[in-house]
Amino acid sequence: MATRPMARTDFASPPHGDPPLETETLRARLAATRARTLALAAPLGPEDMAAQAIEEASPTKWHLAHTSWFFETFVLARFLPGYRLFDPAFGYCFNSYYESAGARQPRPRRGLLSQPSLERVMAYRRHVEEALEQLFDSGLAPQSEAARLLELGLQHEQQHQELILSDILALFAANPLRPAYRAAPPRGLCGPPEPLRWIGYAGGIVRIGSDADDHFAFDRDFAFDNETPRHDALIHPFEIADRLVTNAEWLEFIEDGGYGDPAFWLFDGWTTIQREGWEAPAYWERRGGLWLAMTLEGLRPLEPAAPVVHVSFYEADAFARWAGARLPTEFEWETVAQQEPVAGNLLEDGALRPLPPAETFQGHARQLFGDVWEWTGNAYLPYPAYRRPAGAIGEYNAKFMCDQHVLRGGCCATPQSHIRASYRNFLYARQRWLFAGLRLARDVGR
Amino acid sequence: MATRPMARTDFASPPHGDPPLETETLRARLAATRARTLALAAPLGPEDMAAQAIEEASPTKWHLAHTSWFFETFVLARFLPGYRLFDPAFGYCFNSYYESAGARQPRPRRGLLSQPSLERVMAYRRHVEEALEQLFDSGLAPQSEAARLLELGLQHEQQHQELILSDILALFAANPLRPAYRAAPPRGLCGPPEPLRWIGYAGGIVRIGSDADDHFAFDRDFAFDNETPRHDALIHPFEIADRLVTNAEWLEFIEDGGYGDPAFWLFDGWTTIQREGWEAPAYWERRGGLWLAMTLEGLRPLEPAAPVVHVSFYEADAFARWAGARLPTEFEWETVAQQEPVAGNLLEDGALRPLPPAETFQGHARQLFGDVWEWTGNAYLPYPAYRRPAGAIGEYNAKFMCDQHVLRGGCCATPQSHIRASYRNFLYARQRWLFAGLRLARDVGR
Amino acid sequence: MATRPMARTDFASPPHGDPPLETETLRARLAATRARTLALAAPLGPEDMAAQAIEEASPTKWHLAHTSWFFETFVLARFLPGYRLFDPAFGYCFNSYYESAGARQPRPRRGLLSQPSLERVMAYRRHVEEALEQLFDSGLAPQSEAARLLELGLQHEQQHQELILSDILALFAANPLRPAYRAAPPRGLCGPPEPLRWIGYAGGIVRIGSDADDHFAFDRDFAFDNETPRHDALIHPFEIADRLVTNAEWLEFIEDGGYGDPAFWLFDGWTTIQREGWEAPAYWERRGGLWLAMTLEGLRPLEPAAPVVHVSFYEADAFARWAGARLPTEFEWETVAQQEPVAGNLLEDGALRPLPPAETFQGHARQLFGDVWEWTGNAYLPYPAYRRPAGAIGEYNAKFMCDQHVLRGGCCATPQSHIRASYRNFLYARQRWLFAGLRLARDVGR
Amino acid sequence: MATRPMARTDFASPPHGDPPLETETLRARLAATRARTLALAAPLGPEDMAAQAIEEASPTKWHLAHTSWFFETFVLARFLPGYRLFDPAFGYCFNSYYESAGARQPRPRRGLLSQPSLERVMAYRRHVEEALEQLFDSGLAPQSEAARLLELGLQHEQQHQELILSDILALFAANPLRPAYRAAPPRGLCGPPEPLRWIGYAGGIVRIGSDADDHFAFDRDFAFDNETPRHDALIHPFEIADRLVTNAEWLEFIEDGGYGDPAFWLFDGWTTIQREGWEAPAYWERRGGLWLAMTLEGLRPLEPAAPVVHVSFYEADAFARWAGARLPTEFEWETVAQQEPVAGNLLEDGALRPLPPAETFQGHARQLFGDVWEWTGNAYLPYPAYRRPAGAIGEYNAKFMCDQHVLRGGCCATPQSHIRASYRNFLYARQRWLFAGLRLARDVGR
Repeated sequence: MATRPMARTDFASPPHGDPPLETETLRARLAATRARTLALAAPLGPEDMAAQAIEEASPTKWHLAHTSWFFETFVLARFLPGYRLFDPAFGYCFNSYYESAGARQPRPRRGLLSQPSLERVMAYRRHVEEALEQLFDSGLAPQSEAARLLELGLQHEQQHQELILSDILALFAANPLRPAYRAAPPRGLCGPPEPLRWIGYAGGIVRIGSDADDHFAFDRDFAFDNETPRHDALIHPFEIADRLVTNAEWLEFIEDGGYGDPAFWLFDGWTTIQREGWEAPAYWERRGGLWLAMTLEGLRPLEPAAPVVHVSFYEADAFARWAGARLPTEFEWETVAQQEPVAGNLLEDGALRPLPPAETFQGHARQLFGDVWEWTGNAYLPYPAYRRPAGAIGEYNAKFMCDQHVLRGGCCATPQSHIRASYRNFLYARQRWLFAGLRLARDVGR
Repeated sequence: MATRPMARTDFASPPHGDPPLETETLRARLAATRARTLALAAPLGPEDMAAQAIEEASPTKWHLAHTSWFFETFVLARFLPGYRLFDPAFGYCFNSYYESAGARQPRPRRGLLSQPSLERVMAYRRHVEEALEQLFDSGLAPQSEAARLLELGLQHEQQHQELILSDILALFAANPLRPAYRAAPPRGLCGPPEPLRWIGYAGGIVRIGSDADDHFAFDRDFAFDNETPRHDALIHPFEIADRLVTNAEWLEFIEDGGYGDPAFWLFDGWTTIQREGWEAPAYWERRGGLWLAMTLEGLRPLEPAAPVVHVSFYEADAFARWAGARLPTEFEWETVAQQEPVAGNLLEDGALRPLPPAETFQGHARQLFGDVWEWTGNAYLPYPAYRRPAGAIGEYNAKFMCDQHVLRGGCCATPQSHIRASYRNFLYARQRWLFAGLRLARDVGR
Repeated sequence: MATRPMARTDFASPPHGDPPLETETLRARLAATRARTLALAAPLGPEDMAAQAIEEASPTKWHLAHTSWFFETFVLARFLPGYRLFDPAFGYCFNSYYESAGARQPRPRRGLLSQPSLERVMAYRRHVEEALEQLFDSGLAPQSEAARLLELGLQHEQQHQELILSDILALFAANPLRPAYRAAPPRGLCGPPEPLRWIGYAGGIVRIGSDADDHFAFDRDFAFDNETPRHDALIHPFEIADRLVTNAEWLEFIEDGGYGDPAFWLFDGWTTIQREGWEAPAYWERRGGLWLAMTLEGLRPLEPAAPVVHVSFYEADAFARWAGARLPTEFEWETVAQQEPVAGNLLEDGALRPLPPAETFQGHARQLFGDVWEWTGNAYLPYPAYRRPAGAIGEYNAKFMCDQHVLRGGCCATPQSHIRASYRNFLYARQRWLFAGLRLARDVGR
Repeated sequence: MATRPMARTDFASPPHGDPPLETETLRARLAATRARTLALAAPLGPEDMAAQAIEEASPTKWHLAHTSWFFETFVLARFLPGYRLFDPAFGYCFNSYYESAGARQPRPRRGLLSQPSLERVMAYRRHVEEALEQLFDSGLAPQSEAARLLELGLQHEQQHQELILSDILALFAANPLRPAYRAAPPRGLCGPPEPLRWIGYAGGIVRIGSDADDHFAFDRDFAFDNETPRHDALIHPFEIADRLVTNAEWLEFIEDGGYGDPAFWLFDGWTTIQREGWEAPAYWERRGGLWLAMTLEGLRPLEPAAPVVHVSFYEADAFARWAGARLPTEFEWETVAQQEPVAGNLLEDGALRPLPPAETFQGHARQLFGDVWEWTGNAYLPYPAYRRPAGAIGEYNAKFMCDQHVLRGGCCATPQSHIRASYRNFLYARQRWLFAGLRLARDVGR
């Protein structure tokens, strides 16, 4: 049976030893974050870091540069007197989607940026980091705009850490050699999943979201604008599964003809699986009657008790219908998660794949944080009285509030200090390249 | 100034004179509905009825046949002993999207069905209607499954009445001759729109939706499954505009560069207007410095005080942001509408275009019903504890609950007996061919 | 065994009785041609005449109008003093591809022209014909530009007669009801094809093409510019089949895995059949183990001895390679055809489908004219010293001399007076909707 | 004025000093060819070698591997007893288009092959080269199949040398930084082009093509199958320009509205330039009123007297029509070229860009070999009595004989020993990424 690893992998270690991330200053946290980004890229060769498998995914090198561009553009150019742009052409190359920051390399063509070379991008990172040191040296008021944007840049870089992993997996899965991001020993057989248990919740008015937006810097209260404002929401009585849906359960769905019966599917989902020829989660392939899955450790046998991962919203929704249940709402999920510690199989654990749940702790939902992002039944929409931030930062989250779907809880590639109960991730329903899976919920008493 | 017409147009008259629709029996209402469908098609030639301008729109002839196929497939074949299919091949031709009813003509190819001819489709309609008469003659329990499905078929046909009009407008707008569905005299100049007034509402728990689903037949309590179950929702204090957004206001938005500034737009919206080259609502065209709009009466000058129509969700959302406001939620809208009579510029009024609002009635929102469907800020999602109906009827509304947006209130092409406060229409964000516009809302006290 | 019909169908009869087409004046030939166009459209309803199945094909109504627009634009507007355009908007609607004649309805959207109605198009035809009568009444010099353009317009209309038939077949083949253009009695069984015989030709300098371009009007020497100038060409010794490739032979090709083995195919051909899923000629469908083919008489069993039809160049080329032969060059074909009378299964015969060859006439190639257009091995290129005509007429043939392929000999839908040994038709390699098949050739002595 | 460089660049030097390529043995020529391939790649970093800008172009690394795969698959695996495949998975990765050699990485996805790494591909090259040494050591009969395929592999690798350069230019032109393949000093101003002179040729029977196909190995008589068999062709009197069309002349065409007037264009060409928005040759860009062109030396000012390059067939054909001339046929071109030495601005000259012509040598056409591939008026078709080779080699050239166009003469990236008067290159009409330009011709006496 696969078990959670005891030791952290090297790249996940903070560069400084003792002080826990929670108590470090912003400066130290920033340095540690930047260092971890490099550590994540370390196993890759320059060609691996330059290629782009799909429109959604970006080359590692691009992530390395873009996260530096973010600091350069939104912090250094505004707050460090005399700051010199490393290369004025980099704005075009490494702006992701900020209309207010000017024209940019079209997203599907990021893989064409063979130049600037990796070496030059590394020099860019150092240039930016040295300037950040200067900025810190010059003194920085905790609640200043610069400090707030530094914190945002740190959080932003954490998001790209996760993307480095999901994107390199997309690249390697598209490679006929199915290369591994890291070597792994053969694993023992994984046992069957435990039975699912339902945990019941009463309905009522609950408090949702964060009120962090006015004072997030230099403390642990950071939240993105899309988690605000904190507000009342009404939930109805429901039950929620105490663990994630497993590979074994997904195989049952496949074997029961789940991908062949339109009755389980949303119209857009059915159209999509027909057009794309999907018959299983992304990265699953059947070889000689056996299901394998492409992972960061290469092509591996499925682990029955591990959570299913790399499914679209369409598939998650269809599975839930097949199972006689539904996806939880994001408010139900947050209500449950508010009661649990932010702990789980996250990036620092170093597993880099979802794992079977730990032993049952009666009445508690497990795997809420880490393992896989959990699709909810909610469209990604602004909270009541949400105010779109002014300027470029208003493009960070707000402009995507249309036809995307909320996911909660982080995954095995999410830094522990990045996730929280109120965190809202979002994807288009068709997207499968992130580490996304699902948990079931159901109505009560009807 | 354009005023609301006093007299109904002929085609909108029920075939029987006196009894109001409200009190007619299902049989009479059904006959009246079928007759009105034909009346709506009457101005069109056989070629007009056969062509398909865009994937979303269908030929009139197809609507005539499909609404008959609906009764044949879901009522007659199941409940009329000995019923003989008019033509077994019609199932393929005229099934819209019911996977459970078998294979079908691909949607974008409905315009290739030059055969069966209009004449034969009319014979199909009569064949079905005669069989429905037999079914009625044989007696029909008010709450029977057959009666429920007859009511559903009636409501379904009403929906297609509206589509006949929106779809023929799409066809004529795509025709270089810009033909008119009906002739119209020149109209007098329309005055400027009145100032908008805000009406305030307190927040709290409100009752939303309908509880009609268990006993809808033979009374006026019909509701679609997607309006159920009736449930509590929490709304926050808000203000809502007492009238719809006008053409004059939309022109201001255009002239202020609204279509050229990404700050107003959702990411998907900006991508769409760039790709499509949209610079105005659908059917607007500038000729010699003057804005005209294609209507069912041909190409006409814009009426400044009339509601803007044929805008996408993207545009409605961008306009609201430009105006410093937002779209109402569907729950806010329904709360407001529950307090008003179901009356307005609907199909029976015969205007066939949105009209300027009637004189102010202090503290009341006007134009809630009719004129244009109003985009809300909500994704089209199931209500709490919604149950997807079994079988084909479960495909009617439920499978579309993904990445569509709720519109409320009906439009100038919606039959009066078809609309109500709880009615939920839904479209993809990009769609513009229905009669859709918007009303502004805003938060209070933040 | 299928035999050639004795009686001509009505629509093929010239409106005046006795004088053979050959000796009629241009005026009479023009009247007869216009009348035959209407006769070809006569079996169709208004909806059939308005729909467009594929981009290459046009609605019958569009053909009726376009052939009138051609006379209006290139003859009447230029040569009939005081001529009044029937409707100035028709230029946009019915210009096919003449850049020099202004903007036009995009080709794939011809099926959206539900307006102008058929009735109005018929009035357009009469308007043009009355004006043509006036032009003739006013006297017309035999070699005048006007006379030359009238002849061109007549030839143009003959081309559209063939297109009316091929295009309506494309429409009806796309219709799930598989309607027939005309009714037909069941036919007796058709015997097996006769063995193919090879006819040998020595190589050498041959005369190719026509020198008709300077004096074509009012006599039978009309040729298109693309057949000119008459010039020497060098051919090498070859053998050519005395008949067309048959359905029976094509079935052998299919059963031998012809569509599954890339060794037989050109690269572009293989790519095309993979992408399109082609496994047989257009309009063939296998039902219950039996091959049927959609024809102008509806879905019919294959006739083994009849020529295969509706194959692309890719398929013709692959078949020839499979058969150990090749397609003839257009110069080989023309050399052979120069020695035979212009006779065969043409439009006037009324069969409207390719037929088995008549009995052998030793040493003569049969089926050269009529039955099916024969793909040659030649790209459609200008002849040596070809001069592109000035103005719009230069767009008639010349601008298509790129990446199309020459076909020779006419088909069962080609008017007899329209075809000749030097006639060059041309299609893209992928196109299958015309009546096109093939004849084999091979090298000698190598 | 730009002049031809005196010194060869390093990478163009053969690895062994004295013996001219002409007299080297196959073994030495092969070693020299393989070494030059590496020299061409030497200026590039690993990321530059891995990216793919457009579907037609391939990554350098892929070229390095594919040319090795060619020897491995068609020579070593068949003729070297005990040969061990370097990696069985490489067949999938590096097969280009040989259906008979099995499945392969889709062409547009070659840039996803970040693995195998460059290092591993270099090891592959060495592995193959060591095996080739063994094969030579084991003795090889001059006319053996193995020797013939080695020669073919050498010629094949020469073709890919040219592609390495054109493909890296495509990549760097798509990069917003416009990087240079090699640095270059600023150049002096280039003078205006000399006047064009016409050289006349009488018509008649000429000998075209090569008879080399039965005994090509170990001597200089190699030719590709598509140049065979040598045969008679008939040409008509013509005149041909004594030099290539220049950038200065192309600017005149642009300034005369050449890209805006459909009268100059083939139908497919006009459609293409409208769709693609072409207004100049590929890689031209106007900055601040000045035309620059992207070259292997980065973005440089246009040289007026240098040949225009990176134009499609459509553009070449339109230019010729605008100039009152036409493209030469491939037979005219070959007739002219048979009379001139195979010399010019070829790869070994190291200019890597087309250059102005050398001084006039009265009555001789210049720039026939090297500088730019010259579009001809011919479709790429088999010669009379051409026989497609059996097996995979039959896929080398033969399967592309459809809808491509013949180019003649080689370019500044073509090895000198690779080109000859009978050499036929071929491209689709739309393709511009090779070094292709044009020379004018015209008819005489008509």
